Amino acid sequence: MPDRDDRLTLLEDRDAIRDLIARYGVLADRGDADGVAALWETDGIYAVGGFGEARGHAEIAALISGPVHQALMADGCAHVMGPVTIDINGDVALARGHSLVVRHGAGGFEVFRASANSWQLRKGSEGWRVIRRDNAPLDGQQAARALFDPPV
Amino acid sequence: MPDRDDRLTLLEDRDAIRDLIARYGVLADRGDADGVAALWETDGIYAVGGFGEARGHAEIAALISGPVHQALMADGCAHVMGPVTIDINGDVALARGHSLVVRHGAGGFEVFRASANSWQLRKGSEGWRVIRRDNAPLDGQQAARALFDPPV
Amino acid sequence: MPDRDDRLTLLEDRDAIRDLIARYGVLADRGDADGVAALWETDGIYAVGGFGEARGHAEIAALISGPVHQALMADGCAHVMGPVTIDINGDVALARGHSLVVRHGAGGFEVFRASANSWQLRKGSEGWRVIRRDNAPLDGQQAARALFDPPV
Repeated sequence: MPDRDDRLTLLEDRDAIRDLIARYGVLADRGDADGVAALWETDGIYAVGGFGEARGHAEIAALISGPVHQALMADGCAHVMGPVTIDINGDVALARGHSLVVRHGAGGFEVFRASANSWQLRKGSEGWRVIRRDNAPLDGQQAARALFDPPV
Repeated sequence: MPDRDDRLTLLEDRDAIRDLIARYGVLADRGDADGVAALWETDGIYAVGGFGEARGHAEIAALISGPVHQALMADGCAHVMGPVTIDINGDVALARGHSLVVRHGAGGFEVFRASANSWQLRKGSEGWRVIRRDNAPLDGQQAARALFDPPV
Repeated sequence: MPDRDDRLTLLEDRDAIRDLIARYGVLADRGDADGVAALWETDGIYAVGGFGEARGHAEIAALISGPVHQALMADGCAHVMGPVTIDINGDVALARGHSLVVRHGAGGFEVFRASANSWQLRKGSEGWRVIRRDNAPLDGQQAARALFDPPV
């Protein structure tokens, strides 16, 4: 059985990862491009199914400050994360869970996108950061379901 | 580095705040007006964008026992909270996250409301309670996005 | 006040229950019938309002490999769990919270089902497992709201 310090550290790690992923939704809907980017490592990757791959803080921030996200915000949007299941292995982790984008329009609110997400994370000197997030819409494609495969 | 007791207490605090916010959704959809009100401090505030400000247990309970919420419950509704990012500073805390109201109607379920929430909380002799919750629909207005501003 | 070991164990239990429920959604949308079933005890029950009661791993797995769930997956679906409020009493626990099934179709995504859930869980030699999960759509029926009753 791991000792008390290791158990405490593991709980802190799991708590920090849950908080980071919750913060993504809050920062995205605040339009905080730099805040969103800072959740990733300097050369981190955010691969959004249908939109390609953003690499590094400048490209990830541009997803938030760019026209697609800004149009969503002008309409009104909610990036609601589901709960994640977390597997930690030393200083790296895999978190898997859903995300919803709810969009406001003339007819009220609607679910604009429902996605699978796989978050690879690493713990460094400043805490947990995202190495790579893959997101794909759960529209029947196998690629989205594959993001929910267990860690290898 | 904080000592082990402080680390344990911090994790307990974060866990308790997550549980309190999850309980809100369960109590609201159960129609438990007194249970909902008891999540707040005696003179706590629940400011609901578009519905004004309820202050104190009696007014907060009246939001649940009142006609708007009762009509939602008769139709069928789900007050689904998103995950929250939590910042604790001593015995006060700020939690930020989304909430969805899903409503049942003739055409099935629909997202009736998607909101930003800012929860100010305080830890007292009976645990964490809400000082003030602000909720505003994410329909494009800046007021809702501002609820996701970081703690000052 | 409970001693440090008890406090640590309680936090680990609560974390494990949250993770198990998040894992349900991930495994369901991955179509992992055995993985879903293994969340339950060998003779566990999954009672789905409108679909009857599955008992034991084979029947629970059949819910995932069966035609209703497979049709959902072919269209594209997201089983998004809400946060849960957890009450632990020794080696048994009750978790209560929402779940959403979002379905993809010709018109995009829609909320197909919004439900109340009551999860009875037990901690055994292999960790927490589900004794019984009750799920009922929040379509105005009292039976669904009753799943949010507090533990007796």
